[in-house]
Parts: sequence; structure tokens; C-alpha cells
Amino acid sequence: MKINTSRIHSRIEALAKVGKTSDGGSRRIALTDDDKAGRDLLISWMEKTGLDIKIDQLGNIFGTLKGKNSGSPVMMGSHIDTVGNGGHLDGCYGVISGLEVIATYVDHNEVPEHDLCVAIFTNEEGVRFQPDMLGSLVYAGGMSVGEAHEIVSTDGKTLLEELIRTKYLGHMECGSIITHAYIELHIEQGPVLENNNTFIGVVEGVQGISWHSITFKGQSNHAGTTPMNMRKDAAYAASKLVVAVREITEEIGVGQVGTVGVITPKPNLINVVPGEVQMTVDLRNIDEEKLKAAEFLLKEVIDYICIEEGVKVEIEQLVRFEPVVFDEKIVELIADTAEENGYFYTRLNSGAGHDAQMMARICPAAMIFVPSRDGISHNPREYTATELLDAGAEVLLKAIQKIDQGDINTNAS
Amino acid sequence: MKINTSRIHSRIEALAKVGKTSDGGSRRIALTDDDKAGRDLLISWMEKTGLDIKIDQLGNIFGTLKGKNSGSPVMMGSHIDTVGNGGHLDGCYGVISGLEVIATYVDHNEVPEHDLCVAIFTNEEGVRFQPDMLGSLVYAGGMSVGEAHEIVSTDGKTLLEELIRTKYLGHMECGSIITHAYIELHIEQGPVLENNNTFIGVVEGVQGISWHSITFKGQSNHAGTTPMNMRKDAAYAASKLVVAVREITEEIGVGQVGTVGVITPKPNLINVVPGEVQMTVDLRNIDEEKLKAAEFLLKEVIDYICIEEGVKVEIEQLVRFEPVVFDEKIVELIADTAEENGYFYTRLNSGAGHDAQMMARICPAAMIFVPSRDGISHNPREYTATELLDAGAEVLLKAIQKIDQGDINTNAS
Repeated sequence: MKINTSRIHSRIEALAKVGKTSDGGSRRIALTDDDKAGRDLLISWMEKTGLDIKIDQLGNIFGTLKGKNSGSPVMMGSHIDTVGNGGHLDGCYGVISGLEVIATYVDHNEVPEHDLCVAIFTNEEGVRFQPDMLGSLVYAGGMSVGEAHEIVSTDGKTLLEELIRTKYLGHMECGSIITHAYIELHIEQGPVLENNNTFIGVVEGVQGISWHSITFKGQSNHAGTTPMNMRKDAAYAASKLVVAVREITEEIGVGQVGTVGVITPKPNLINVVPGEVQMTVDLRNIDEEKLKAAEFLLKEVIDYICIEEGVKVEIEQLVRFEPVVFDEKIVELIADTAEENGYFYTRLNSGAGHDAQMMARICPAAMIFVPSRDGISHNPREYTATELLDAGAEVLLKAIQKIDQGDINTNAS
Repeated sequence: MKINTSRIHSRIEALAKVGKTSDGGSRRIALTDDDKAGRDLLISWMEKTGLDIKIDQLGNIFGTLKGKNSGSPVMMGSHIDTVGNGGHLDGCYGVISGLEVIATYVDHNEVPEHDLCVAIFTNEEGVRFQPDMLGSLVYAGGMSVGEAHEIVSTDGKTLLEELIRTKYLGHMECGSIITHAYIELHIEQGPVLENNNTFIGVVEGVQGISWHSITFKGQSNHAGTTPMNMRKDAAYAASKLVVAVREITEEIGVGQVGTVGVITPKPNLINVVPGEVQMTVDLRNIDEEKLKAAEFLLKEVIDYICIEEGVKVEIEQLVRFEPVVFDEKIVELIADTAEENGYFYTRLNSGAGHDAQMMARICPAAMIFVPSRDGISHNPREYTATELLDAGAEVLLKAIQKIDQGDINTNAS
């Protein structure tokens, strides 16, 4: 069996036309009219492939091909909603390739052992409704349907209202398809694979995330008249912390990342010592113990800076997710499959969140990555070369075939 | 002779009512209607004191009491324009006290040896017309009258238009009053005197100022997916520079101040490594050679940071003023006067700019400071206790008396 790669590309192109932005990006924010149009298009393709289509109470869409032993399916999938001005591949590539894997069975008149299913999860990006990965979160039992329905969008609509309005409020109970295994194919959205010059990323897990908002409060003073030893400079304190975050990542070692993305001094005037700086620290690690150690060091260094500069601090935890470790057997299977098909691969962890991490709560799950040029994503400049997209879809097909043929025994039924 | 301190306070209060803001601050931005109303009020007081009033081509106002040997006057003065929401003392205290010194002569029927003059300089704050200290700059020959007249305000009017509109375009040629000596009494606008617990600041000079805008350009990347060793983090580079600026001040030693007031990262999002940061560095020193050394170290460390983090940089010099050293004899005379009148004093340099630094180009000049509570200025919370204001005015009177009586021979005629 061989994937019809040209159909993948033409479908990526066709979907990109829905909600196309003036600079060629994609704008299909969850449960807007453009997202609905995208969903309708995907469903038309699923119908063409002869799939049985079910929609659940969160608007998650599942297209299933019956196998010889009907029951818990081998599932693929991702999302088709986008950020405000995103690329054509984030999410869509995984959904369209998943559908293509199933279509390949159909085209070759092959009946799989298990049911094969492709899923489209609602509101992965979290731009309009928070949190992100909402559809898969609820599907995996991480939040109740009722609670999710009451979430209010940035434009003041509830999720339930928008599900009804777009006609994507389904009857299927969330989580009712007991999944044998889940594999999500996705672009990396980072630079590691490109830099390693490998086609395939074997994703071992998703980093745990720790976000803090930190506000240093010092004393706003005249830049000319205030001697250095009398300053309580909030910008100095903040900058010491930025440098310390880098040192913490070095101390914890490879795999620990730390980022200060937001620095907002007040009053932000050239000749005034900043009296206050609000900043954010984003720490991520695949290892929960190491992530905890990084958080400990962060707090220790903040205390030290406060004493050194005579400033006060307010710390607020914004987000905390534990790392997700994907199913070892599926990870190995993907690595073997890549190798057997002649692709160099890199084992890596995902720095970004994905629906697969929610599915990993309820079934054996893993991910396949393909390179992102310059690591760029969430941007119209997002790009992956055709042969890399083809390679990813091929590895997905071969891995699904192996799982379907019972090459691994997953814990699920 | 003794100063009528209660008149000083009632006049400060009366002037504060002109352009009073909702939170009790003062708003008399140069050559606005409120500034004009303040000028009119000051002129009415000058007339009451019997002074001869002259206005020059820049709207600078000079009120003169004839002395026994008429000719080049001993001058006092400052400004009465304010920032957007300033205090009641910045500038006004010096003008009103200068007028009070002359009024004291008049009240006591004392005729001074020299003419005594009080000056009100136009647009000291530089909020509406740039540069700041414009009236005294032109008076001292640092800019031509024609060039100054063409300066366009932030609201699109030329200085000449606004001088005509407010009826403050005078006929007197700028610089035509040859001044024997100039003393400016001012609040410190910094914390040094309060912290030293002294009433009087003997100002030896004004710091040189070097302002740079520095823009680091790195690579904007995903905070989760970009390994630390592949980052070109503009915020890290900027923060290294903030810390280095502090180190530079320590290296150069006491008297060197350095401030990063502006830090503006792009895109300033929690989960994105900043690709660009624009920041400012404000360096000041009373010693030109040391200021040059600080600037040299600044550029050296920027180069080092660019190499270390793999970022590019754009550097723009925004402002560069050489330090001003006040007349040694007048400085000593002020110190002696403070001591003789029972006031502890502190010798210091001004970190802020003042009209006195322009007058120092054309006559022997110096300044007297009184403490600012918490070092706060350019703010409605600007405050100096009554007894401190009284002490400053008393020292001004006594110093002027000495100069008038020929205690020092200045270089001017």
C-alpha cells in the first residue's frame, strides 16, 4: 500500500483557502464561520472516503472505517482550528494525513483488523476559548462537558452557543470511543529536526510547563539625581532574573528550557529608574523532578535578588502542567518504522502542547514530527517541504499498519 | 535684612493655583494659556516690587532693581513652566525666592551696589518644545533666535507663533544683559540631601549626559520548542546589558550613574523568545573623561554580548551634553554662607539639567539646592518642608549680599 501524497497536498491547499488571510496565512479560529467551513470540508472528504461520522458533545469529529474486528479503533488525528494568522500545516497536516491513511486502505480494498478512526478536536489553539486543547481535554475526562459548555469566548459567546450556532453540537458522549492507540502526526514547530537534518521526529513526550508572572516593585527615581547605592531598580532586578533563568537552565542541564518573554517596566521612560517591572518566566522540562528543581531555583534566586536590590516581589503561578510521557511501545514502533523505511530520525520531546497529550491519559499514544523550516509556526511563513510531508505520512501509514496487525499489545482493549 | 518667608509661601501657593491639576499638581506647559497666566502673575508681582521689566526675543522675562552702580546685574532666576503634571516647587521656588531677595532690599530701603535681577526662562522643561532649557540656551548663545523661533511644538505650533499668541515675544536682544553673576535656587529633585540630613546643597556642577537607544535583534522563537543553545534571545542580551550598566558604574566609581529606563521586547508574549528588544541607556558623570570611559565600556560590553548571544545591534546616540562645572568662587561663597548661617551643607552635582548650566557659559554661575522629600519631582507629590524652603531663600539672600558687596571678583565686568 502506498499513500496518495498528491491528494494530501491538494487537500492541504484546499483547506488553506478556507479563511485565507491577506498575507496568505490561515484564520479559522475555533467555532467561527471559517472554522465551520473547514469542518464541513473535512466531513465532505470523510464521506467521500465512506467513513462513519460521529460528532460528540464538544464538537469533536470522528470518522471511522470499520475493520474486521470492529470495536476499539486505532485513532489518528489533530485539529484544524488556527491562531489569528497561522500557517496551513499546524494540525491540518495531521488530520488530512490521518484521513489519507484510511483512504489508502479503502483505495487498496484492504480491510484493517481494527477500526481505523481519524479525529478532529475542537479548539486546540485556545485563541477564542480557554484553555487550549479543550476538545481533547474534555474527551479524555479532564473537564466535564457542562463546565466546558459554559466557557465564554473572547467575543462573549459560550462554547455551547457557538456549538449550536455552527451545528457542531453532537450527541455522542465524550470519551465513548474506547481507543486502542492514538498517533498524531504534526509539524515540529521548532528547529531541532531541521538542525539535525533528519526527516522524522519520534516524539517521546510533551514537556511539563510552568508559567509564572513576577512583578518586582522598587522605587521610581530620577536617573540623574539618584546615586547608584540608593536605588531600588526594578529593571535591574528583572534583568538579574532573566540572566539567572538562563543559568538555571544550564544548572538543570539539557532538556530544561527557560524563557522570559514579557518584560514591562514602569514608567518606561529614558530618564526614570523603573519603579516596577512585570515579567513572565516560562520553564519547561520533560522530567517532572527536574522541572520542580528549576522552579525551586527560580524562587531561590528571586529571594536573593530582592535582598540584593532592596525590592519587593509578587509571584503568581499562571499555568502548571506536568510532563506527559508517551507510550514506550508506540514510540519504539515509530522509531523502528522510520528506520525500516530509510529515514533518519531524532528522538525529541514536544515543547508545544498537542491533543495527543490529552489522549495519552486514556490510551497508548505518541506523535510523529516532521521538520518546520526555521522552526517557524503560528505564522503564515510556516513551511515544510513536500518530501518531508510525504515522509511523515508514509511513516504514519506504516506505523498504523503495524499497530493494526498487532505488532504491539497496548493496554487498551 | 531678613526674608519675608510667608510671602514666598503664599506666592508659591498662588502660582500653584494657575494650571492646577485634579490631583493637586501643576500643569503650565511652556507658552500655553496656563503658562501665560503664570507669567502674567509673576510680572504683576515684579511690578508691585517696582522692578524694571524686560522681555527678550525668546520670551525670557527679566525684572531688575537699579543698584548704586548700575550696569551688569547680579542675577537670580529659574523657570515657571512645568511638565504635564508637576509639583509646585520645581523652578517656581527659585523664581519666587529670587524676586523675594530683591523685594527684601526694597522693603528695607536698601539700595544694592549692583543692579539685582530676577529671570524667568522660557521652556525649561522641554515638554512642548525641544530641546529643554531652550530660553537660557538661546540667551547664552547656544542656539540662534531664528532657529529657536522655528521649533515646532508637539501640538504643531512654532515657538514664534506661540510667543506672539501669548504676547511674550519681546524686543530685547537675547544675551544683552551682561550678567555679573548668576545664582539659581532650586529643589534637589533627588534624595541625597534628605539622606544626608542637610538643609543646603552646594551645587558644584551639572553632570554630563549621554543617552543611547540600543536595539538588539535576535530570533523570535517558540519558548517550548527551541533548545537553549539554539536561541538568539534579544531579551537575554538586553538583560545582560542592564546588569553590565550597573557594573560599569561600579567600575567607573562614585559619581557615575547609569540607568536603563526603557525596555521594550517584541513580541512581548509569555511563550515566545523575544526577537527584538529596544532599550535605552542613560549615563551621567560630572567628569567628562569618566563619562567617556563609561561610554567606551558600554560599547565594549555591547559587542561582547552580541558575540555571546549571536544577536545584532543598532545603537543610536540620542543626547550628549558635556558636564558643566560651576564657578569655584561662587560655590565656595555659597558653602561659607550656609555654614555662617548655621546650616549643614552637602556639596553635590546636579543630575538634572538647569538654566544655570546655560548661564554658566556666559557668566560666573552656581546653584543652591534644598532637599526634595523622597527625591520626588516632576510629580504632584513633590514636596519640601517650609523650614527648608526658608533656609534656602535665606542662604540665597546672604550669598547675593556678599556678591553684591564685592566679596568675590567674578570674571564678568
